[in-house]
Amino acid sequence: MYAVILAGGKGERFWPLSRRDKPKQFLSLLGNRTMLQMTVDKLQGLLTPANIYVITERIYLELVRKQLPELPLENIICEYCGRDTAAAVGLAAAYIQHRDPEGIMIVLPADHFIADIEEFQRIIQVAVRSADSGEYVVTIGIRPSRPETGYGYIQQGEAVENLEGINVHKTIAFHEKPDLQTAVDYITQGSYLWNSGMFVWRVDLLLGLIARYLPELNRGVALISEAIGTEREAEVIRNVYEKLPRVSIDYGIMEKCEQVLVIPAAFGWDDVGSWTALGRYRESDPQGNILESRGVFVDTHECMVYAPQRVVATLGVEGLIIVDNQDSLLICSKDRVQEIKKVVEALKEAGYRDIV
Amino acid sequence: MYAVILAGGKGERFWPLSRRDKPKQFLSLLGNRTMLQMTVDKLQGLLTPANIYVITERIYLELVRKQLPELPLENIICEYCGRDTAAAVGLAAAYIQHRDPEGIMIVLPADHFIADIEEFQRIIQVAVRSADSGEYVVTIGIRPSRPETGYGYIQQGEAVENLEGINVHKTIAFHEKPDLQTAVDYITQGSYLWNSGMFVWRVDLLLGLIARYLPELNRGVALISEAIGTEREAEVIRNVYEKLPRVSIDYGIMEKCEQVLVIPAAFGWDDVGSWTALGRYRESDPQGNILESRGVFVDTHECMVYAPQRVVATLGVEGLIIVDNQDSLLICSKDRVQEIKKVVEALKEAGYRDIV
Repeated sequence: MYAVILAGGKGERFWPLSRRDKPKQFLSLLGNRTMLQMTVDKLQGLLTPANIYVITERIYLELVRKQLPELPLENIICEYCGRDTAAAVGLAAAYIQHRDPEGIMIVLPADHFIADIEEFQRIIQVAVRSADSGEYVVTIGIRPSRPETGYGYIQQGEAVENLEGINVHKTIAFHEKPDLQTAVDYITQGSYLWNSGMFVWRVDLLLGLIARYLPELNRGVALISEAIGTEREAEVIRNVYEKLPRVSIDYGIMEKCEQVLVIPAAFGWDDVGSWTALGRYRESDPQGNILESRGVFVDTHECMVYAPQRVVATLGVEGLIIVDNQDSLLICSKDRVQEIKKVVEALKEAGYRDIV
Repeated sequence: MYAVILAGGKGERFWPLSRRDKPKQFLSLLGNRTMLQMTVDKLQGLLTPANIYVITERIYLELVRKQLPELPLENIICEYCGRDTAAAVGLAAAYIQHRDPEGIMIVLPADHFIADIEEFQRIIQVAVRSADSGEYVVTIGIRPSRPETGYGYIQQGEAVENLEGINVHKTIAFHEKPDLQTAVDYITQGSYLWNSGMFVWRVDLLLGLIARYLPELNRGVALISEAIGTEREAEVIRNVYEKLPRVSIDYGIMEKCEQVLVIPAAFGWDDVGSWTALGRYRESDPQGNILESRGVFVDTHECMVYAPQRVVATLGVEGLIIVDNQDSLLICSKDRVQEIKKVVEALKEAGYRDIV
């Protein structure tokens, strides 16, 4: 049983706090521990550090080493360049197969929040049991608490087994991020779950599915697999990886494969995908403001101010995200936080590469 | 003929750019020269530096010396503490009387903007001729271009003389800042002028008016007058000044005195009283933004961003004043700029004395 933590994301929606050289998963957005550290923390008791892998871009290797000193160095797998989740998972699978051809992989994003760790571990254990036969990919679906348009959805089918009181269902379909009306319909309908990006499978099953649905990726993974443990390992990965197809695991495999099960779960999950999402985990003042800044906030409502190094004064403003980070400053309407990525793109194009 | 520039203001409405130790008159808000320097500049050709006085608080002495190196040091008069304009003018009058008992004083605020300097000098010369007999206080009234509620108004009466094609009028009344409806009525009525805070009078007339309307101030000025030129001078001013009544020249004398004339003028005057006022003198982008900052401004309208040391990104915001000054940051709705003083007060009360 192995965990593979996907830590290659860019997290641009947290600009200017997140930067190209220190994205969201390496930030302490929810307390003292970084999102990556919290992800490892929630595996405590379930897995030893020797069985936890982190896959990340080459430029983040030092950050991962510093933040997770307990991990064996060989468990940090470098992508060299971003090639989306199917390639990352394929690369990790090559390593795990080498060590344990029938090992079970638990794939977890590095930058999500889970409130109830005990329940999370209970669900993971059921998923592992369900995946143990090597017949099924098991996904974790989150029971939705609001008509969220920022997540993908999994449509659950009939229950196929019950393990320790937890139902495991067939999957009818994966759905991309819906518009609001569709999201409301999903919630009303009752059998739609949020796609958490957490998957459990036997490594041999996964590699079989890659061979079937993503032949180009399969050839690359095979080349890497042959080189693992040899002196050509780093060189081969570097050469092969950048030529791999850029496709997500959802689009590349999940949406096509029929051997997918889903476990509906409710352990307080959040992808903490934006500044407003973060607001759900901070205490607000009586005017609905979340203030991580010294200063005065006159007639200010529903704002988030993150400026720990400065004194801030606001007067007569509402619904703003204000984030200060030494050399840069973001002022954004709360209903536009999903577009911060565009701002980062615009900054790059305008030549401000040193601050993104 | 002597100019007295009143440079003791606190200019809090320009926080965080203005600070207690460097208020508005010492800032370069409109180009390379500071407001104080621009005020001296516009007297060029009319007066030599030896005849220009600056009256300011003790803590700004060094700033004035640095910004106006051409002025004789003895022409910088220190107030020791702020006691409003009547006391400042009285103190300056004591010095000028000592040098020239029938000298004409031209009183000018240090922090206003004048566009047409040639016309300004023409008006001042007429005011000086009109004040020369020692019978009248001559004020400069600005023909209003909008129903401004931030200025006081002067109601003009019949013309009493015409000098070089310029009418000099009797004054019917001084009016405090009006509400909007009253301001609209003033504009419609046509005989109301903005009170520019510029006055011309003979020093002996002014001292006579102080004796008549402000007896307490008169006693203080008399004590100071006796001490000027002696070794007790600094000590007497220090002791006397802080006990002087705190009253404006408008309220203390102008509103009561009947010997007041007004010259209607139109030389592009502005008190540059707020961040939005400043916007009238900056070029805006097609979205109505005034941007003194590097960065990207996505879907941003009618904002003013002043942050020369940072990269700023705005997204989906409108009508905001955003000002950054190293250790502090202001985000203010444009229609609330008049309340920035309150913010500064609140910051003081909250203990942020080092940044106001």
